[in-house]
Amino acid sequence: MKKAIIIFLMVFGFQSILNAQELALMPLPQSLEINEGKFRIDRNFNIQIEGLENERLINGSYRFLRRLDDRTGFFFYQNNDFKVDTASSLVIQAQREGELKIHEDESYTLLIDTLGISINAPTDLGAMYALETLVQTLSVDEDGYYFPAMKIEDSPRFTWRGLMLDPARHFLSVSAVKKQLDAMASMKMNVMHFHLSDNQGFRIESKLYPQLHQLGSSRGEFYTQDDIKDIVAYAALRGIRVIPEIDVPGHATPILKVFPEIGSHTGDYEYVLETWSGVFDPTLDPTNEKTYEILKDIFTEVSALFPDEYFHIGGDENEGHHWDANENIQAFMKQNGLEDNSALQTYFSNRVLEIVEGMGKKMVGWDEIYNPKLSKKAIVHGWRDWEGLDVYAAAKDGYEMIISEGYYIDLMHNADVHYLVDPVDPELSPKAKELIIGAEAPMWSELVTEFNIDSRIWPRTAAIAERFWSAEDVRDVEDMYRRLDRVSLYLEQDGLAHNSSRESIMKSLSNGEDIAPLRNLVNVAEPMKVYTRNPGGKMNHNYYTFKKFADAATADAPDARKFNYLVKDYMKTGDAIAEKEIRSYLKTWEANHEQLLPVIQQSPILGEIKELSENLSIVSQYAIESLNGVNKTDSWKRKASLAVANARKQGGRTELAMVDSLELLINK
Amino acid sequence: MKKAIIIFLMVFGFQSILNAQELALMPLPQSLEINEGKFRIDRNFNIQIEGLENERLINGSYRFLRRLDDRTGFFFYQNNDFKVDTASSLVIQAQREGELKIHEDESYTLLIDTLGISINAPTDLGAMYALETLVQTLSVDEDGYYFPAMKIEDSPRFTWRGLMLDPARHFLSVSAVKKQLDAMASMKMNVMHFHLSDNQGFRIESKLYPQLHQLGSSRGEFYTQDDIKDIVAYAALRGIRVIPEIDVPGHATPILKVFPEIGSHTGDYEYVLETWSGVFDPTLDPTNEKTYEILKDIFTEVSALFPDEYFHIGGDENEGHHWDANENIQAFMKQNGLEDNSALQTYFSNRVLEIVEGMGKKMVGWDEIYNPKLSKKAIVHGWRDWEGLDVYAAAKDGYEMIISEGYYIDLMHNADVHYLVDPVDPELSPKAKELIIGAEAPMWSELVTEFNIDSRIWPRTAAIAERFWSAEDVRDVEDMYRRLDRVSLYLEQDGLAHNSSRESIMKSLSNGEDIAPLRNLVNVAEPMKVYTRNPGGKMNHNYYTFKKFADAATADAPDARKFNYLVKDYMKTGDAIAEKEIRSYLKTWEANHEQLLPVIQQSPILGEIKELSENLSIVSQYAIESLNGVNKTDSWKRKASLAVANARKQGGRTELAMVDSLELLINK
Repeated sequence: MKKAIIIFLMVFGFQSILNAQELALMPLPQSLEINEGKFRIDRNFNIQIEGLENERLINGSYRFLRRLDDRTGFFFYQNNDFKVDTASSLVIQAQREGELKIHEDESYTLLIDTLGISINAPTDLGAMYALETLVQTLSVDEDGYYFPAMKIEDSPRFTWRGLMLDPARHFLSVSAVKKQLDAMASMKMNVMHFHLSDNQGFRIESKLYPQLHQLGSSRGEFYTQDDIKDIVAYAALRGIRVIPEIDVPGHATPILKVFPEIGSHTGDYEYVLETWSGVFDPTLDPTNEKTYEILKDIFTEVSALFPDEYFHIGGDENEGHHWDANENIQAFMKQNGLEDNSALQTYFSNRVLEIVEGMGKKMVGWDEIYNPKLSKKAIVHGWRDWEGLDVYAAAKDGYEMIISEGYYIDLMHNADVHYLVDPVDPELSPKAKELIIGAEAPMWSELVTEFNIDSRIWPRTAAIAERFWSAEDVRDVEDMYRRLDRVSLYLEQDGLAHNSSRESIMKSLSNGEDIAPLRNLVNVAEPMKVYTRNPGGKMNHNYYTFKKFADAATADAPDARKFNYLVKDYMKTGDAIAEKEIRSYLKTWEANHEQLLPVIQQSPILGEIKELSENLSIVSQYAIESLNGVNKTDSWKRKASLAVANARKQGGRTELAMVDSLELLINK
Repeated sequence: MKKAIIIFLMVFGFQSILNAQELALMPLPQSLEINEGKFRIDRNFNIQIEGLENERLINGSYRFLRRLDDRTGFFFYQNNDFKVDTASSLVIQAQREGELKIHEDESYTLLIDTLGISINAPTDLGAMYALETLVQTLSVDEDGYYFPAMKIEDSPRFTWRGLMLDPARHFLSVSAVKKQLDAMASMKMNVMHFHLSDNQGFRIESKLYPQLHQLGSSRGEFYTQDDIKDIVAYAALRGIRVIPEIDVPGHATPILKVFPEIGSHTGDYEYVLETWSGVFDPTLDPTNEKTYEILKDIFTEVSALFPDEYFHIGGDENEGHHWDANENIQAFMKQNGLEDNSALQTYFSNRVLEIVEGMGKKMVGWDEIYNPKLSKKAIVHGWRDWEGLDVYAAAKDGYEMIISEGYYIDLMHNADVHYLVDPVDPELSPKAKELIIGAEAPMWSELVTEFNIDSRIWPRTAAIAERFWSAEDVRDVEDMYRRLDRVSLYLEQDGLAHNSSRESIMKSLSNGEDIAPLRNLVNVAEPMKVYTRNPGGKMNHNYYTFKKFADAATADAPDARKFNYLVKDYMKTGDAIAEKEIRSYLKTWEANHEQLLPVIQQSPILGEIKELSENLSIVSQYAIESLNGVNKTDSWKRKASLAVANARKQGGRTELAMVDSLELLINK
């Protein structure tokens, strides 16, 4: 793994350096050399595909031109052969078609000088990434649009860079999935892990057992087999592998609803699709041969739709209550020397692995499948790192691993939290390190719908994508955020609604009133983190539509983040400009409650944030008084401290994200 | 047709009257009686389905609850049987399942009093419309959400209330189509006319002739047969019929690309999918028996996917150039006594009608199919009303008609233009009037993509939906706009992106700068109307993505509309409050150019509106001077008049929509 080498050649004065520094490349390439000069774009910009010319490159070049259209206002039409008679602006040369498999070559070289642009790559996959990098380098000066001269040599640190989508809990239309694939490609992610089945739904058409999608989904919310082919083909054009997951032996209620005879519960028991969140008891019976027959049928049908070599069998969160209560299962364990439920699950996993291997595939499972008796052919998907669990245990024991611990974006942590987690513990042995083939960010969808998903995943996940692609020592949080703000705009230009859908929610909540005061509050409030927004999975029903204040809010609340930086700076330096900006924020917040109150009165749905808004106003007032040098009597201190405590209370299932900074100002 | 009876029972003082007057029902019901009292909503609100209980009512009730969730913040979960043990808030009683066919009963009675709500309807279709009306009556006061007491008796004026979608020119995903169906249902429209084939693409999978969708669409942009079934079922749950159109004998390039042997051009000729807009020459050969064999195959396969009784064969804009140049066709005409191309097309239409009737369907065609020799079984779709053409000619001659003349929403007229067009000429004979079974708004998609379609159709089309549903004498434009502003919010609450997508475009165009000054300009600029934005179809290629200034702009530019009303009022009354508001607008516009200029400099894509922005600033300055009582010298008048003339110039393919008002102020 190469270190990032960033060389600024400061040859041609301030302007070009400024632009080079302002570049917002994400993920940061392994090697970046900024040179003098600019390659200007006019309406004659065109692409020449030399060497390999396949559907992926043609489609990718077409999409690149459309994105350049959007950004420049020109229209760069070319025929689909991308053969240019005259001078070409951009020459793409890939040597061969890349295979969608791990350890494929994804490297590229991108060279921009004043005369033109060239992309060279061993495979079309690398060439496609070069286009993604190129579109991020688009710059502007008084004369118009240009690409700054530079040389980039780039390749990923990890071969498996995934995002997990969960249409089981809240269904995502094909269009919504495609939007995520577009965004993933732009961030050079190459695996979409598709969590297709869980207690809440079975989301894929089965022609063999149609009841699986008919009874296993309501309101027709499943993918037809044509839909799946469409998604897989769309992903492949973007260099993305799609890995299906059918979660067993737990999380399998829809399968049990159709085949109750392979369940572990004894006697009469009705398996009902879950409509709340949580961990539930229904579990397949690992001692029943029919279980394996049915799974073989289902897996064979599903896996045939996904050309990828890997197949995910879930395996998580089986607490074994139904196993414990089943005498036959207990007898089976005794008979076979299976000392506990983990051993029984390993027996199950090894049986399932035989099925998966029999289909010519490799089996992946969440880390509950790990047990020293598990076949070494299994790939362990690490996610647990608490109560003495070591997320790297399987790698240390010789298993290949994918790491998701630290990348659970449903927890709504800020981007920097994930950004600073490395998929590889530096203290692992070289052999164990090599077994970590990559990492994945899972977007569990208990609180996520097609409407709000863009803002739940993006732009945060771009920072995670950088962690998976770029060098280990790329860890400058402030620079990450500087680039992330720009990347957020790029994602919006490419069609994501992570900002605009939040505006829609604010409009709806404001019931036709001016949304500015609500926006002021949203911009400092973050949805409650980890699992506190929805305690025990019981506060929000699955059928709810999630267009509330907490859904308009995001992690990385933008004004809170800026304010926190300002206060940090001000506390260190006492800088007057910082103070002025701090005062401006405080004044806005202090006055905001009075602006928001009439909106709340016209829109009782906002009642849940009335106190939050008032608390913000009050705590801001104390911060202003402190900056003004008020005489801090004991009574003032008591009241100010109460204001800080109140400002820490949740409102509308969000929390103000700059109370620590306010407290610093108050105690100054 | 009943007259609208609006009775305000002013029993309980100001508050309840105010709310009643503020109701934004659209389309306006035939009879509305506002009573005293309120039915309050708490978290126990529930629905009881009595009488008929079918999938449509269950699904509709489920969706109603979700929309009420969104608006109130409660979560109204009910089991899917909608049987309530305790007291029920809303009782739905439909007598029988409505059939999706013309002249079906769609009437309903909605009764709200302080104790509860009841819906009674002869069919579930009427009951569904009652739910749409009910959701619009949701009101708020200091104590929370409630439904005002009222009695509504309602039924549509026309049985065919359509919107035409055109995925041929720019494809629309299944999700995008479903969003339109949701919006249509909320506006009580009941026909989605699906223009599935045109020179630019054949958008439906053919299992019989797979080349039709394979060669007839690029980038996989077609509906699978499963997609079509999904769309038809989704529409049916909302009481919407789906009418497919396969346009012949012109507009049929994809068919000719696959079957060049049935084309009218002689000799070697390559049929190529069009990627520009316009009227093109390729035409089926009506003298070739094979033409009818192939059409029979295609129509039979397509129509089997659409349960509706009607099938649209297009028939428009065949200029017959290839017929004129084909000797065999000329000979055939002579031989069969067909005096001109219209007669030949009628021969063709009658042959096609036999095919359609043979499938058990009724044939609809655009009004070019009309000719006295056309079978009386055909339904004529009127759209032409120029150069001596009478759009009602076919109705006068005894044919059933659907009217689209006056409702071409692709022309980007303001809502009032369409609103004031009645589908029926009052001077028609009673018999001819009866033959007008309804009307349709066509959304031709030369400049319309999945990304911008919401704002091209909505909210404007809600005013047209009112024209199709409500009484003939409901024609108060000012009240229509008052309600339309509210309906726009309802549509946004239900998931349309007609506002938020425009915000996204503005953000992208502003390249990360503050979008406020751009928004100020967008809010007074309207996309050039009729076909002037894209002269001759040659300014914008089909592959273009349409995220420019003109796509952020809409018809009915909101600030221009408000300003025009203010000036009208002020010129009549000299009202001081109006003057103050006028001055506030003028000041903003005058100062706006200076704010926008730095944004334009950072974003050359906005160069196209630099002059527009500057012209707005200058003309506003003259209007201010005029209001200030400047001495209007000849020189001042000349310069002011030049400023007005400049303000009329297009910029970014838009025009300022309040220049007449500015001119009035300047000449005051």
